[in-house]
Amino acid sequence: MISEQTIDVVRAFSEEREWGQFHTPENLAKSVAIEAGELLECFQWGEGDVAEAKDELADVLTYCILLAERLHLNLDDIILDKLARSAEKYPVALARGRSDKYDKL
Amino acid sequence: MISEQTIDVVRAFSEEREWGQFHTPENLAKSVAIEAGELLECFQWGEGDVAEAKDELADVLTYCILLAERLHLNLDDIILDKLARSAEKYPVALARGRSDKYDKL
Amino acid sequence: MISEQTIDVVRAFSEEREWGQFHTPENLAKSVAIEAGELLECFQWGEGDVAEAKDELADVLTYCILLAERLHLNLDDIILDKLARSAEKYPVALARGRSDKYDKL
Amino acid sequence: MISEQTIDVVRAFSEEREWGQFHTPENLAKSVAIEAGELLECFQWGEGDVAEAKDELADVLTYCILLAERLHLNLDDIILDKLARSAEKYPVALARGRSDKYDKL
Repeated sequence: MISEQTIDVVRAFSEEREWGQFHTPENLAKSVAIEAGELLECFQWGEGDVAEAKDELADVLTYCILLAERLHLNLDDIILDKLARSAEKYPVALARGRSDKYDKL
Repeated sequence: MISEQTIDVVRAFSEEREWGQFHTPENLAKSVAIEAGELLECFQWGEGDVAEAKDELADVLTYCILLAERLHLNLDDIILDKLARSAEKYPVALARGRSDKYDKL
Repeated sequence: MISEQTIDVVRAFSEEREWGQFHTPENLAKSVAIEAGELLECFQWGEGDVAEAKDELADVLTYCILLAERLHLNLDDIILDKLARSAEKYPVALARGRSDKYDKL
Repeated sequence: MISEQTIDVVRAFSEEREWGQFHTPENLAKSVAIEAGELLECFQWGEGDVAEAKDELADVLTYCILLAERLHLNLDDIILDKLARSAEKYPVALARGRSDKYDKL
C-alpha cells in the first residue's frame, strides 16, 4: 500500500525544500526514467542486489507520486482504469501463460 | 493512494494470466524502465499529453507493484525509509530552492 | 565518425577483461538503457553539464558498439536502412517544422 | 563503422525537415533514453527479436549522432577518451572475468 500519509510525507519533503519549482511534469518524467535506469542497474548482469533495488524502487515511486500530484491524478484510479483496458487487450483465454504482446496473441 | 485492494487487483490480473513465470525481478526491472521510457515519450519534445502520460504512469506503477510483491517489499516502508535517508543527504537549510545533487550542496 | 580502429579498441577492451561472457544481447540492451539514464541525468533539471554528458554519451555508444558486434550488425548499414524507412514515414512536405509523430502528421 | 557520410545523411535528414529547432541537448538526451527503452523492450521477457532490435539500435545511434553534433563532440574522441579512463578503473589484472563495479573489485 501507498497510504495518504506516505503521499503527505513525500509532498512535505518537496515543499520544505521548495523543490516544486523544479517539478514540471517533464522534469518528473525524466526523473522517473533516470531512477528506473538505476533500478535496472541492480540487475545489469543478471544477478540482483535486493537491498539496492529496494532503494531505487523507492525513488521511482517517489517521483511517480510527485508526477501524479502535479497532474492531479489519483493513483488507484489510473492503475485500475489502465488495468481494465489491459484486461480487454489481454483476454485470459488468449493470454494465459504467454508473454506475447497483444497484437501477437 | 495505492490501496491494498488495488494491489490485489494487480496481483489477480497477473495470476489469472499465469504471468508470474515471466515476472523475475530482472524482467520486472526491465519492464519498469521500458514503461518509464514510454512515459518520457509523452514529454519528448517538451509539451506533454496528460491523457497519454496518465496511462504510461499507470504502467510504471503496475510493474513497480509487481516487483515489490516479488521482492516481498512493503511500498509504504521502502518509500518512507528512503525518504528518511534522503532528508539527511538534503538538509532543508542547504537544499532549499536548489536542484543540486547532494555532493554539490 | 566511429572508425573501425575505435571499434577494435572497444572489442579489445572487452576481450582483455574476458567480459564477452557477460555480454548477452539482453545484458547489453540493459546496459544501453542504464547509460542512457545516466546521460539523461545530466539534463534532469533542464540545464546540462556538457563534460559529464560527453562521458555518458560515450558509454551509451560503447554498449551500442558491443551490441552491434554481438548481433553481427554493421552500424552504417542499420542507421542508413532505418533512416530510409523513416524518410518514408516522415515525408519532408508533411514533416517540415513539426515534431508530431508520423501517425499524427 | 559510422562513417562521415552516414553522419552527413543523419544531419541532412534532420535539416530537410527543419527539426534542428526541436533538437536541444535535453530533448536529444530524452530521445536517446526513449529509444533505449524501445531497444530494451525487444528483450523484455528474455528472448530477443534481432530484426526489431536492429531498428531500435539504429534509432539510439541516430539520436546519439545528433546529440554529438549539437554538443560539437567527435564520436571517436569521446569513446576513446572514456575508454582510456575506464581502463584505469578496471585494470585487466583485477577485472578479468568479473562483472563487478570498479568500487567492488
